[in-house]
Amino acid sequence: MANDMPPRRYETLSGIPLKVAYGPSDVRPYAEIGDPGQFPYTRGVHDNMYRGKLWTMRMFAGYGSPEDTNQRFHFLLKAGQTGLSTAFDMPTLMGYDPDHARSLGEVGREGVSVASLEDMERLFHGIPLADVTTSMTINAPAIFLLSAYIAVGEMQGVGPNRLRGTLQNDMLKEYIAQKEWITPIRPSMRIIRDMLVYCTKEMPLWNTVSISGYHIREAGATAVQELAFTLADGIGYVQLGVEAGLDVDQFAPRLSFFFDVHNDFFEEVAKFRAARRIWARVMRERFGAKNPRSWILRTHAQTAGVSLTAQQPLNNVVRVTMQALAAVLGGTQSLHTNSYDETFALPTEDAVTLALRTQQIIAEESGVAAVADPLGGSYFVEKLTDEMEARAMAYIHKIDELGGIVRAIEEGYPQREIAQSAYDFQRAVDSGERTIIGINKYKTDGSSRIPTLKIDSRVESLQIERIKTLKKERDAHAVKAALDEVRRAARGHDPQRDNLMVAVLDAVRCRVTLGEVSDVFREVFGEHRDPAYL
Amino acid sequence: MANDMPPRRYETLSGIPLKVAYGPSDVRPYAEIGDPGQFPYTRGVHDNMYRGKLWTMRMFAGYGSPEDTNQRFHFLLKAGQTGLSTAFDMPTLMGYDPDHARSLGEVGREGVSVASLEDMERLFHGIPLADVTTSMTINAPAIFLLSAYIAVGEMQGVGPNRLRGTLQNDMLKEYIAQKEWITPIRPSMRIIRDMLVYCTKEMPLWNTVSISGYHIREAGATAVQELAFTLADGIGYVQLGVEAGLDVDQFAPRLSFFFDVHNDFFEEVAKFRAARRIWARVMRERFGAKNPRSWILRTHAQTAGVSLTAQQPLNNVVRVTMQALAAVLGGTQSLHTNSYDETFALPTEDAVTLALRTQQIIAEESGVAAVADPLGGSYFVEKLTDEMEARAMAYIHKIDELGGIVRAIEEGYPQREIAQSAYDFQRAVDSGERTIIGINKYKTDGSSRIPTLKIDSRVESLQIERIKTLKKERDAHAVKAALDEVRRAARGHDPQRDNLMVAVLDAVRCRVTLGEVSDVFREVFGEHRDPAYL
Repeated sequence: MANDMPPRRYETLSGIPLKVAYGPSDVRPYAEIGDPGQFPYTRGVHDNMYRGKLWTMRMFAGYGSPEDTNQRFHFLLKAGQTGLSTAFDMPTLMGYDPDHARSLGEVGREGVSVASLEDMERLFHGIPLADVTTSMTINAPAIFLLSAYIAVGEMQGVGPNRLRGTLQNDMLKEYIAQKEWITPIRPSMRIIRDMLVYCTKEMPLWNTVSISGYHIREAGATAVQELAFTLADGIGYVQLGVEAGLDVDQFAPRLSFFFDVHNDFFEEVAKFRAARRIWARVMRERFGAKNPRSWILRTHAQTAGVSLTAQQPLNNVVRVTMQALAAVLGGTQSLHTNSYDETFALPTEDAVTLALRTQQIIAEESGVAAVADPLGGSYFVEKLTDEMEARAMAYIHKIDELGGIVRAIEEGYPQREIAQSAYDFQRAVDSGERTIIGINKYKTDGSSRIPTLKIDSRVESLQIERIKTLKKERDAHAVKAALDEVRRAARGHDPQRDNLMVAVLDAVRCRVTLGEVSDVFREVFGEHRDPAYL
Repeated sequence: MANDMPPRRYETLSGIPLKVAYGPSDVRPYAEIGDPGQFPYTRGVHDNMYRGKLWTMRMFAGYGSPEDTNQRFHFLLKAGQTGLSTAFDMPTLMGYDPDHARSLGEVGREGVSVASLEDMERLFHGIPLADVTTSMTINAPAIFLLSAYIAVGEMQGVGPNRLRGTLQNDMLKEYIAQKEWITPIRPSMRIIRDMLVYCTKEMPLWNTVSISGYHIREAGATAVQELAFTLADGIGYVQLGVEAGLDVDQFAPRLSFFFDVHNDFFEEVAKFRAARRIWARVMRERFGAKNPRSWILRTHAQTAGVSLTAQQPLNNVVRVTMQALAAVLGGTQSLHTNSYDETFALPTEDAVTLALRTQQIIAEESGVAAVADPLGGSYFVEKLTDEMEARAMAYIHKIDELGGIVRAIEEGYPQREIAQSAYDFQRAVDSGERTIIGINKYKTDGSSRIPTLKIDSRVESLQIERIKTLKKERDAHAVKAALDEVRRAARGHDPQRDNLMVAVLDAVRCRVTLGEVSDVFREVFGEHRDPAYL
């Protein structure tokens, strides 16, 4: 019968050739692997792993008005979710207010619309910020959103030192893959520098940058490239903090990571293990970090949106289950599981509940959380971990030779590598060499009708109305003064005296909007042009 | 938050205590593990495992009339299934024709109704028996159904020597757990003996007995008990064949196994590995088998029906995915994945397609089939394999002391052990010590409405009409003579001269029905009374 035939290529999705079987000679000496919770952390960041604390179940959520998303947040917390994660709409991601011409038709469509302190208040209505951890997927205008979150905390009587959560704030991967920017790369790095300086002092529980491989992978990178470019980005941020005069052991523990989990089950497990080992060595050896908390790579993970199909959508439940399991066996600290309907629209409550249940079944029915690094010692998994590490290190050395990640991006190097991988993968799918069930094999006739989430079309006019009213009612003099101070700081260079985080936070308190702060950045720093298309 | 709390018990579902982490000192010398395809087959029965041949995707199917199930068979083959598996209705399983009073309301309800050679012909209409492998879940009247299958083969010009497939035919587990019998245990064993003798000579490609742990597990046994009692049953059948004068290396290669795959991911993987190692040693050391094909334990697996919930039914897709993955990582040769709607009814086409897609995604998207025994060497998995083996061997020794599995069953020993485990598990669920998502945690309001399969209520009258017509139209003299010969053989003892398989096959060719053959067994052998309730 047809699928008694063996698959044609015996290699991982990254192209690592696979032997038919692995044995004891494939495993390096145990001292180089190390116990769970011990350098180099191959086997996980804690000695007791999930017995001490389960991974955080953190479902990315956001659509419509702040009130719509606030309702979804409450729904998820009630369903047993353990951390919040915010998806913003395109105008917010790009730094435009809802009333900007470029926002037309996009307000609240693919995430929540947040352009003001008032919107941020609505988003977290009834949620005590002292009691939750919040993740915000925001990059170019991250400084504005973090400021608004801090200001909401202040209103609740919760100081920035008590806020817990994660800001994505990873601009390097934007230039590599995601392509959502306001300014050129060096000013972006300078804004992040100012935030590092501020947060290191004021927000000891906050993860300032979530160094993200997810978008790199989703743009078509292989697992090896995702691993390599993400860690190279991480090296870039550590370098940035060190050059700003920060003590590496003060700020490095608050850097976290964010990886994709794709279909190739064992390659994904190995990727997490290799990532921890590389990072521990880089931090200790390259940056001379002394604090073990600087050595450990803590990570969020998300199942691969790009692996899901609109065809036969319930097949996505199967894919997400395997990917989530790989992330857990890889030792993630936090996990988002995609909903099966996400290729059609933002997830319905039923679909997101099933995605959350997927994590809960893994956590509480399957028994896999009882033992640290249960795959540790597997001849195959250990060998694959070594292979991923070696191949990622080759990329990292290449980037070092190019003069570091900022230079490499300016030359378009990672961008070109990813484009090549994306092309190779698509060709393999088109030729049938790689199977995608329901796409190039086991197709079925007819469309799959599933219920999808509809966004209320009145959200856009509501948000436009709100921002216009705000701009009329606030203190225009205070706004002008605050924006002038942002401009002055932007033109300066000193991480202390000209710190943009301090300036933006003051502006937010004066009810300056997202678009207004971003406009100052556009004015002072100019706009970015992608070297890959020059 | 609530589920940041660590789970309370760190032990497998079988109660094996778990350390927080495992290391190199937990692994026995590699020579005792062995390469894939090498004695003692811990790492799988083939050196190249799924590269040589994927597991057979074999979805258990049967409902309504033979035509209904025939249509489902064609649907599944078209959807990419690679083997057939037949579910029979309760009257067929108990050896009653559709027109028997005890069949009332049950004909075609939970499986297909097959009571005659004509029904078997309808069931396999348009399916060339030379080209498929067929599994039949039938036990007490297995001799009749196999005979009918052979007779259909003859009509297609395919001799019994070319038929490939598996008969469940495992009566020992019926007395232990499933409780579907016609005669007492020793006559049942004698019928199986006659089939072993016949099939060893005439059906070299046929698996005569599928030694089944599935029903033992579903009745509430732990994984260790499932492993132990199933292998003890296997030892019973090998003993039976040897005592009938068969060369162990002639018939043992055609015994196969059938295990459950439950929620505890690593315990299930370890169970398959331990099963192979125990069986290889038993066959070589206890029975002196010389043929490596006698040493290897080939198995079918099915995801755990008992683990599925009617509440939040799509959660079952998640459970089935993990269980299926465990079976594959455990090295199964064949797999049925349950449909998510099976707690409500027999599966719809959509649900069974999703269950099949689950296997195809594991096989063709996840990459796990590329490497033999990918978990081999894992400190945890190797230790758990050892633990399962040691605990199962303790049960097997106890059964040896009781005088073998037949005596142990007659004394109610395995029955009582399983009842105790079932009780313990239920208590743990009731107390919340064991979580079942949607049942004792993360419950949601409201019922889950999903489409279910409706059985046409006219099936019963159709099948009654058919059997009545058959009984009128056939050659009454030939029928009487054939039944007399079955009766004579049943009263005899010689595996050659009084072979019941030969007699029943002749009877089937004369259009004798299932109920008529079973009535002779009831008349000659009497009925069974369960020692557990004496």
